[in-house]
Amino acid sequence: MAKTKTIKKIKPLDNLSLVDKVELRLVAFIKENNLVPGDAFPKELELVESLGVSRTVVREASLRLRTLGIIESKKHRGMILTQPDFIDNFERVLDPKLLGNETLKNLFELRLILEMGMADSLFARKTQKGIDELEQIVEADEKQGVDDSIFSLEHEIQFHGKLYQMSGNVTLQRFQVLLLPIFEFVHEQEELSKDHVKGSIINHRNLLDNLKIGTPETFRSAMRTHLDPHFYRIL
Amino acid sequence: MAKTKTIKKIKPLDNLSLVDKVELRLVAFIKENNLVPGDAFPKELELVESLGVSRTVVREASLRLRTLGIIESKKHRGMILTQPDFIDNFERVLDPKLLGNETLKNLFELRLILEMGMADSLFARKTQKGIDELEQIVEADEKQGVDDSIFSLEHEIQFHGKLYQMSGNVTLQRFQVLLLPIFEFVHEQEELSKDHVKGSIINHRNLLDNLKIGTPETFRSAMRTHLDPHFYRIL
Repeated sequence: MAKTKTIKKIKPLDNLSLVDKVELRLVAFIKENNLVPGDAFPKELELVESLGVSRTVVREASLRLRTLGIIESKKHRGMILTQPDFIDNFERVLDPKLLGNETLKNLFELRLILEMGMADSLFARKTQKGIDELEQIVEADEKQGVDDSIFSLEHEIQFHGKLYQMSGNVTLQRFQVLLLPIFEFVHEQEELSKDHVKGSIINHRNLLDNLKIGTPETFRSAMRTHLDPHFYRIL
Repeated sequence: MAKTKTIKKIKPLDNLSLVDKVELRLVAFIKENNLVPGDAFPKELELVESLGVSRTVVREASLRLRTLGIIESKKHRGMILTQPDFIDNFERVLDPKLLGNETLKNLFELRLILEMGMADSLFARKTQKGIDELEQIVEADEKQGVDDSIFSLEHEIQFHGKLYQMSGNVTLQRFQVLLLPIFEFVHEQEELSKDHVKGSIINHRNLLDNLKIGTPETFRSAMRTHLDPHFYRIL
């Protein structure tokens, strides 16, 4: 355990404010004492006394832990440890306008990586209900006469979103919902090379058929071809 | 854009505290005004006046934005918008002891998904230097006479960590460093079925050879076999 922890980037101590230090101290305190969600967190006054810092500093550091969802206040119980919803924290900073271009590109590539990698989860947990719903999405697209060579953002989101859902991994699924604005943002900014798209095409219907009768291996191969215009642009 | 946003979970307004509402209001303000990193953030007093709430409430909400890395204070410039490091936020709550069991399992599965999906990035960006370093890691393992049928956590981390690095996607790489404690935690908790492992084995040497002369497709297939004991346990 100790070995890995050292891999983490460590900020030079000089750059840390007093509040930073108290925040780190409080997190260390939680770990050292093996506190788990539901356990009581020390009272403000106790912390002021044991840490030897002002009430303002303690309050500011505690507020950070509250913001991060590590502690929360309960009526008549003071502060208690809580189970942080790590995706929720994430969500609050994932505004494409605030993220750098490099991060946006990396996140878009992450989407491709996830969709290439999720085949096993998908095949292990697919249900007839899921297949039927996917069928409806594809049929609706076909009725609308969508040109296969054009990626319609809305259809992409519907179809691929359903795949994430069918993977049965709630964390993965929430991650995708969260990343959607990023995908849209990148999608809007970049134009797909139509010439390239017109090569070998695997459309949503082909993917669905593959999901019905294929294997994770054949599905990955089909998905790779389906995503090829994106890979071509990025790699 | 509007369509996707509605997918996000919306908290009932009744559950929001005044500070919650001010936080949301400030984030909305940033978006409406298209503020980008470097732009000035309104002064505390201005916010008190325009929002009609107390200084304490404004301060608490601003502190949250600071905790999340959305704004920061600059000498002589007051508060300015900053580029939030979204992985940093994440890091502070990713303590395996604080996360639920379901989330831990999902995150471990996410690792498998990422490693299955990263082959294209890996082949597009692999360098001779990276291959040489991987070679050294594998040779060191072989000298130590590591039994192939046993997954040594340390060797796993070295080898697979290098792969993430060679993928050239910094976000993916930081994500992995971040998830390491989770992987270790799950690794320690679960025992691999030795019988199953003894079936068809693809070891690190085989993966390295594949990376040298194979294709993303052959590499994915080899990686799938390599990770099979984990998939077997989870799916």
